[in-house]
Amino acid sequence: MFNKPNFPDMPHIKGLHISTCEAGIKYHGRTDLLGIFFSLPTRVAGVFTTSLCSSAPVDHCKAALSSGKAKALIVNSGNANAFTGAIGSQICSDVVSCASDLLSCDSNEVFLASTGVIGEPFNSEKVTCQLSNLLQMSGYADKSGGLSLEDAAKAIMTTDLFPKGHSEVISTPEGDIYINGIAKGAGMIAPDMATMLSFIFTNAVLSAELCQHLLSKICATTFNAITVDSDTSTSDSLLLFSVGEEGVKISDASSPYYKAFEEALTKVMSNLALQIVQDGEGAKKLIKIEVMGAYNDLEAKKIAFSIANSPLVKTAVAGEDANWGRIVMAVGKAGQRADRDKLAIYFGDHCVAQNGARDPNYCEETLSAYMKNYEISITVDLKLNDGKFTVWTCDLTEEYIKINADYRS
Amino acid sequence: MFNKPNFPDMPHIKGLHISTCEAGIKYHGRTDLLGIFFSLPTRVAGVFTTSLCSSAPVDHCKAALSSGKAKALIVNSGNANAFTGAIGSQICSDVVSCASDLLSCDSNEVFLASTGVIGEPFNSEKVTCQLSNLLQMSGYADKSGGLSLEDAAKAIMTTDLFPKGHSEVISTPEGDIYINGIAKGAGMIAPDMATMLSFIFTNAVLSAELCQHLLSKICATTFNAITVDSDTSTSDSLLLFSVGEEGVKISDASSPYYKAFEEALTKVMSNLALQIVQDGEGAKKLIKIEVMGAYNDLEAKKIAFSIANSPLVKTAVAGEDANWGRIVMAVGKAGQRADRDKLAIYFGDHCVAQNGARDPNYCEETLSAYMKNYEISITVDLKLNDGKFTVWTCDLTEEYIKINADYRS
Repeated sequence: MFNKPNFPDMPHIKGLHISTCEAGIKYHGRTDLLGIFFSLPTRVAGVFTTSLCSSAPVDHCKAALSSGKAKALIVNSGNANAFTGAIGSQICSDVVSCASDLLSCDSNEVFLASTGVIGEPFNSEKVTCQLSNLLQMSGYADKSGGLSLEDAAKAIMTTDLFPKGHSEVISTPEGDIYINGIAKGAGMIAPDMATMLSFIFTNAVLSAELCQHLLSKICATTFNAITVDSDTSTSDSLLLFSVGEEGVKISDASSPYYKAFEEALTKVMSNLALQIVQDGEGAKKLIKIEVMGAYNDLEAKKIAFSIANSPLVKTAVAGEDANWGRIVMAVGKAGQRADRDKLAIYFGDHCVAQNGARDPNYCEETLSAYMKNYEISITVDLKLNDGKFTVWTCDLTEEYIKINADYRS
Repeated sequence: MFNKPNFPDMPHIKGLHISTCEAGIKYHGRTDLLGIFFSLPTRVAGVFTTSLCSSAPVDHCKAALSSGKAKALIVNSGNANAFTGAIGSQICSDVVSCASDLLSCDSNEVFLASTGVIGEPFNSEKVTCQLSNLLQMSGYADKSGGLSLEDAAKAIMTTDLFPKGHSEVISTPEGDIYINGIAKGAGMIAPDMATMLSFIFTNAVLSAELCQHLLSKICATTFNAITVDSDTSTSDSLLLFSVGEEGVKISDASSPYYKAFEEALTKVMSNLALQIVQDGEGAKKLIKIEVMGAYNDLEAKKIAFSIANSPLVKTAVAGEDANWGRIVMAVGKAGQRADRDKLAIYFGDHCVAQNGARDPNYCEETLSAYMKNYEISITVDLKLNDGKFTVWTCDLTEEYIKINADYRS
């Protein structure tokens, strides 16, 4: 059984100012607009959807990243501003130009993200008319507090069941390093699509290039190692902000706290990614799929995703059925090098198949008992070489169909 | 609304002898073993699963095809003989050797297919003890009738809701050409996996090489252009038998009836493939996805399958929701060349999006009415070049989850 996690306490990062409001873009009676403003010099790096139909805000952020500097992040929920054509770009320009005027900054220091309905243009005034107020409420001017990252996480939710956050602290003789992250998950509202947004803030002083290096590297094994339903959003955005210049400096891989920072950032990203899977639509179980013994890591990854995205594997887990035949099927269809007669499959610690056949000690009762757990671990050992990859996913339940089919019908 | 089709009348093909029996491999009270015997010289060609974990019968057939000749086809349902290790190969050898003894033929003239439970060895005697009886009942010895292909289609069903067959006749001054085909579809019984089997018989006289050429060519746009749930079986097998030597001869592409034969064979394969999709687990609607204007046919195919396999697209159709945003998403995630701002999307004849934004004439009521149809046609025009591909799939319903999750739980 999965219990919704409480939003963690997060240490304040100096120079980070937050405010939210009800802009009424689609939702009513809840916050749907988030402004984060940086009163201290801030470096930024980002990773975005690989979709060729990416949203207008994603296109803006990709271009803006060239500056490596950030003054503001404006995020709305309720409308993804995706597939809105020239109007979509105009909405971005309106918001960016309003924000850069208010902050007297360059337009490529303003970052945007939108999540929600696709294909429906919205009036940019709903956002721009709020910006001055948001900036004032954030405490940017007098460098006072503003709201918390929990408030921020709430404003960017769509059908998420809980706000997602994780924080890590590294204590050093030069001062504490904080890494605070928030995310929104694979919530879907027809006619929307899954949108993953995550924003991470640290008081450590890293260059934009180093932020980018770490973000891209760690993303491969965290956010890029999860799947809810194999569908890739047009709006996925992950941004890392290094706020201020008085914190612990990490200039390159030889810096004393580089390793600790990388580890802590990995924990934040991995924790947020897992929260997204745990809050996957209709999800009742968390599934860890570990592939080892592949020819190389890339082939291991393709096999792991073939298993994680198989509707038959996911429905079997939903039905608490240790259906290892479907794992064989998913390995076979992945098209990567595999030798049926060497393959071993484990559910938890229980070997169910090896050497191309069912394990002689296979016991249906033991496996059935194991499948009742909330977290299911599936390991495939190809026994060919040392390639490995781990993917996290959730089960596929009738609730998923209900959430995604019943809207508007 | 889809009505189960009646099994069509099929003209008798001389030299083809059919019998079935209840071997009790897994099911009880229904036939589960099919023997087809050829009393006239018969050429054969086949196409099989691309799974790297293919079943023992698939491995046997691939090797046996080198002879290009067939005397018998033995098919059982209830057990796929997949991932059964050395025992699986032994089962195949036992059955083949028993059949080749009875028929005084070479072992590579006996073809096998199995569908059902995976990973569970079965006693080959359940099959071998029936073979002599099956042969006798088929009328092979005195060249009399035996059973019909409808009986054959019934014996190979697993959770199919109806037996699948299609027949085409080409009338020529040299006599009629018959093409009779049967298939079983994506029925699943945990711990099984989807298994597609199809067997096609003709009285036209083609070489094994020409059979293979046509089968492989036509397969690309028929059986390889359907998907129920993106999961590829370890057992998929498609065999084409050219029975006897007195029928109309088709020696190569310049033969007078080559074109007509290719067209008729395409109709048979395409019809059987569609029946499989229509009987997809939990399927309530048939979806045709046509991609045009891609850079080339391969890219069109990848985009079409990205749409056809998207759980979000399939649940939207189940919910009768014209959710074209999810089509954009699926085009975007396919990773093929696409220009968001040129893309046009149609549901039936209704243009919903063009030039990267919603169509100005978009009308929710019209679309909602269209989505109530049984057959939904989705067209994506990328407007880049002339690459095109069409894929058929079904919707994803709660019933699919029930069928695949609830067994054994």
